[in-house]
Amino acid sequence: MSNSDKVIIREVGLRDGIQSLPTIDTAKKLEWLQIESAAGIHAFEATSFVPAHVIPQFQDAGQLIEQGKREPALDLSALVLNEKGAQRAMAAGVGNIVFVLSASATHSGKNARTTPEAALNAVRAMIQQARQLPQPPHIAVGIATSFGCTYEGRIAAKTVLNIADQLAQAGADSISLGDTVGFAGPRQVRELFTQLRQVTGKLPLGAHFHDTRGMGMANVLAALDTGIRQFDASLGGLGGCPFAPGATGNIATEDLCFLLDEYGLDTGIDFEKLLQARQWLGTLLPNEPLHGALSRAGLPRIIRN
Amino acid sequence: MSNSDKVIIREVGLRDGIQSLPTIDTAKKLEWLQIESAAGIHAFEATSFVPAHVIPQFQDAGQLIEQGKREPALDLSALVLNEKGAQRAMAAGVGNIVFVLSASATHSGKNARTTPEAALNAVRAMIQQARQLPQPPHIAVGIATSFGCTYEGRIAAKTVLNIADQLAQAGADSISLGDTVGFAGPRQVRELFTQLRQVTGKLPLGAHFHDTRGMGMANVLAALDTGIRQFDASLGGLGGCPFAPGATGNIATEDLCFLLDEYGLDTGIDFEKLLQARQWLGTLLPNEPLHGALSRAGLPRIIRN
Repeated sequence: MSNSDKVIIREVGLRDGIQSLPTIDTAKKLEWLQIESAAGIHAFEATSFVPAHVIPQFQDAGQLIEQGKREPALDLSALVLNEKGAQRAMAAGVGNIVFVLSASATHSGKNARTTPEAALNAVRAMIQQARQLPQPPHIAVGIATSFGCTYEGRIAAKTVLNIADQLAQAGADSISLGDTVGFAGPRQVRELFTQLRQVTGKLPLGAHFHDTRGMGMANVLAALDTGIRQFDASLGGLGGCPFAPGATGNIATEDLCFLLDEYGLDTGIDFEKLLQARQWLGTLLPNEPLHGALSRAGLPRIIRN
Repeated sequence: MSNSDKVIIREVGLRDGIQSLPTIDTAKKLEWLQIESAAGIHAFEATSFVPAHVIPQFQDAGQLIEQGKREPALDLSALVLNEKGAQRAMAAGVGNIVFVLSASATHSGKNARTTPEAALNAVRAMIQQARQLPQPPHIAVGIATSFGCTYEGRIAAKTVLNIADQLAQAGADSISLGDTVGFAGPRQVRELFTQLRQVTGKLPLGAHFHDTRGMGMANVLAALDTGIRQFDASLGGLGGCPFAPGATGNIATEDLCFLLDEYGLDTGIDFEKLLQARQWLGTLLPNEPLHGALSRAGLPRIIRN
């Protein structure tokens, strides 16, 4: 493993962070993309193609992608949960589509009104259809509740690995494991990603961690050690889990970048600008509790006396 | 490395956590020791033998040790910064004395009005004197600012290793590295502890991390991977660094235990009781901000529906 590898930091605040919040203007979302991009973050999960009556926040999904695509510095993804969403995402011409299915059948039913098997079939259909396009989008699949589920408890590794195997065979371009409800710890992360690598060969793999029980950064380190080089995070740890009141949401982008940088990876981040972006987010969402340690303590500094 | 190893969790809240706070009654300190001990924590850095006019909180050091010693479940340590403190600690008959010196000369001057060299001499004198006692105390040495200093920035590894080498030769019973101001990251932690192990042979080693910039748990994982099996922490992350306003203090005991448990180590912790102890601490210190994620989110739970 070389520490000089590039690493992909995916900002998911615009999707995972705001999905339960009052609707934010498209112009403000674009401003967010620009401000954070100027700090060195380029990959964004910017929206989700779900019905507007289910999540009003994403009613501007098509418009946001259309306008965001004009900015070459932005590498935009959109989340979909089913074939209908996939159709809309392809019609909007987004460069990356992230299909999220659940390893937990109960979570799958509640989150997407489907079964893991039906979701797998939808992914297969999406991949076939995408391949017909003149410029096929990158098809990523996120496996939610890979490390545990609020309804089913621990999810067996073989369940996750079996899904991943089928996704790899179906032609997914990358796979990410999600700790949707913050159950994961570093030992489990190492074990599962090590096994996943064996199943998926050279397919790019990613990790989506929440910091619900304080394990977020340790889980990142554990995943890094198994060679994972793609991580989801949200600025200020925005978001939260409706099943764990008071719990923080995704790991904080700024803390993640601090760790990746110290680990020796090439993040390309301007930390001063990233902390400014986080401040800007605080003014955009004055009533939302933001998390993360780096913004509170500041960058390490030396007092000359 | 076997994950079935025992691990020592040292609660330092009664020392590092409260040193800047208004004086707490000795009876309340004893209650704290008992409540947390009932949850499975047995090693406590319970006080410090420093002049009462410098830190009034520890004016009852002798009394607390005398009363605490009567409880067989408690494994008490006291911190000292110089020979005078060491004399008092030995007179009080504490089982473990932790002499803290600084790798940073500037921090050494400000924190203990001494130089690293003079502090090393004081440690040597203390060890010689302790060996004359019928029941010699365990002599641990903490090297503060091992990972960086607010005044001097990065501390060279060779500076820390040189001090550790001299401590090992002097006959210290254990050595701990302290990230006093929260500069450490997991890569540095792994590198320094790996080198330290080479210098110190089989001497027990410990780690004292702060969570100032969110790296606390990742640093624990990094240290665990190098074989470290002794960690300092404070309940609710009590404490803070006067040089980093708003920063949290030590890593939170309850989050540390959660990680160690998931790592597969035998902690002996009753998590329900530990979270109750943390609640009790909140009532003892209603005006102090407590930190940590596990207490906020609760233990992982499964919703049956």
